[in-house]
Amino acid sequence: MSALVEFALRMGDNTLILGHRVSEWCGHAPVLEEDIALANTALDLIGQTQMWLGLAGEIEGEGRTADDLAYRRDAFDFRNVLLVERPNGDFGQTLMRQFLFDAWHHLMLKWLSENSTEGRVAEIARKAEREAAYHLERSSDLVIRLGDGTDESHRRMQDALGHHWTYTGEMFVADAVDDELAEAGIAPDPAAMKPGWDALVGEVLAEATLAIPESDFVHKGGRKGQHTEHLGHILAAMQFLPRAYPDASW
Amino acid sequence: MSALVEFALRMGDNTLILGHRVSEWCGHAPVLEEDIALANTALDLIGQTQMWLGLAGEIEGEGRTADDLAYRRDAFDFRNVLLVERPNGDFGQTLMRQFLFDAWHHLMLKWLSENSTEGRVAEIARKAEREAAYHLERSSDLVIRLGDGTDESHRRMQDALGHHWTYTGEMFVADAVDDELAEAGIAPDPAAMKPGWDALVGEVLAEATLAIPESDFVHKGGRKGQHTEHLGHILAAMQFLPRAYPDASW
Repeated sequence: MSALVEFALRMGDNTLILGHRVSEWCGHAPVLEEDIALANTALDLIGQTQMWLGLAGEIEGEGRTADDLAYRRDAFDFRNVLLVERPNGDFGQTLMRQFLFDAWHHLMLKWLSENSTEGRVAEIARKAEREAAYHLERSSDLVIRLGDGTDESHRRMQDALGHHWTYTGEMFVADAVDDELAEAGIAPDPAAMKPGWDALVGEVLAEATLAIPESDFVHKGGRKGQHTEHLGHILAAMQFLPRAYPDASW
Repeated sequence: MSALVEFALRMGDNTLILGHRVSEWCGHAPVLEEDIALANTALDLIGQTQMWLGLAGEIEGEGRTADDLAYRRDAFDFRNVLLVERPNGDFGQTLMRQFLFDAWHHLMLKWLSENSTEGRVAEIARKAEREAAYHLERSSDLVIRLGDGTDESHRRMQDALGHHWTYTGEMFVADAVDDELAEAGIAPDPAAMKPGWDALVGEVLAEATLAIPESDFVHKGGRKGQHTEHLGHILAAMQFLPRAYPDASW
């Protein structure tokens, strides 16, 4: 598989799986405004997925559509980081997962839209970047309000940060695919994104009065298809309809 | 669909869905002996499923195997009572669901093995009845021990009874299929099973110092294919493998 296909899958699988996770909140959020906001975030992410997986299928050239890639692959063919498949937990855990991802996502899309030597990648990034910037604005704002809120909201946000922290490192670990992409100027070296992410996340967490966990352990494997048990359950639910009715059309 | 096929589906879907639910405990039970006992119960129920769904497919005569019926139908084609698709909850809820079902199941299989005018039904019932008798012995014993146990175990068992109670009535409500089967002497009139079940359940619950809830509301629909949201999630997990790999063989 070409590095570019792999890259488009990694981007698209991140947004697909996080989009699905966030969509699980639909009808369950603590207040109506948040319910609608979460559903809109999910829709943005799934819309971006269509572009990334559409590009992956186009470059692969085997006739697979974005839908085929979303609904006909099994867990070991998914390339998302483990962070996005983590369970929703409470609202604080969902929000913290979103913030930690949004910070990376925004920086990544910004880099791609400004620098990528691959025109189709830059174009998708430009469309997605405005949405990601808005997601980051929302999640930062809520992390600050709840982190620097009541005793209970502070405790929950601190717990959520500890819960997800060791899953953030995977976004910055390069493999041979990343090296090839960076060399071609298609995508940044993942490790080079880390200082910007650290600064952005550090600033928000400081304002939220939350302490950054000390562990530097890195849970990884998702970008190579080695996933947690959770992904299988996500796919079982997400893929039921197209798998049960393979010839269905709208 | 003939009444006999419908009957075999109802029996087989009860044991399939309850067997799947109980199998979800595998590796999670509170003590090792219970873990093994629950896994064995699940296996018994799934073994009985093969006989019932095998019979359904045979009589239907359209070439569908027990596996086809288990893994290729969607929720609205399932005929199990709603009780067996209820979530596991805590150990007490799982156990109470099992006891309430076992009491009915044992009486039903006993009737079928002794009275059914359909030889194939009587034969399956004879094989299954010994297992069901043992399941009932175990679940009765545990309901008594935990109901008449500590304050916490008593409270949890009483909660579990209240939680499931309104789902028990469905086992005793007859429809046109039941009328046809009863008239042909293939199966009992469901309502006629109620006094025996009331006596059996009443005796165990009294010894367990548990109070029978006062509500006589009956949640129903499962035996006609109208299910709770839970069944869809069960099927998504249970059917993932055969749906994702439709041509796979052992």
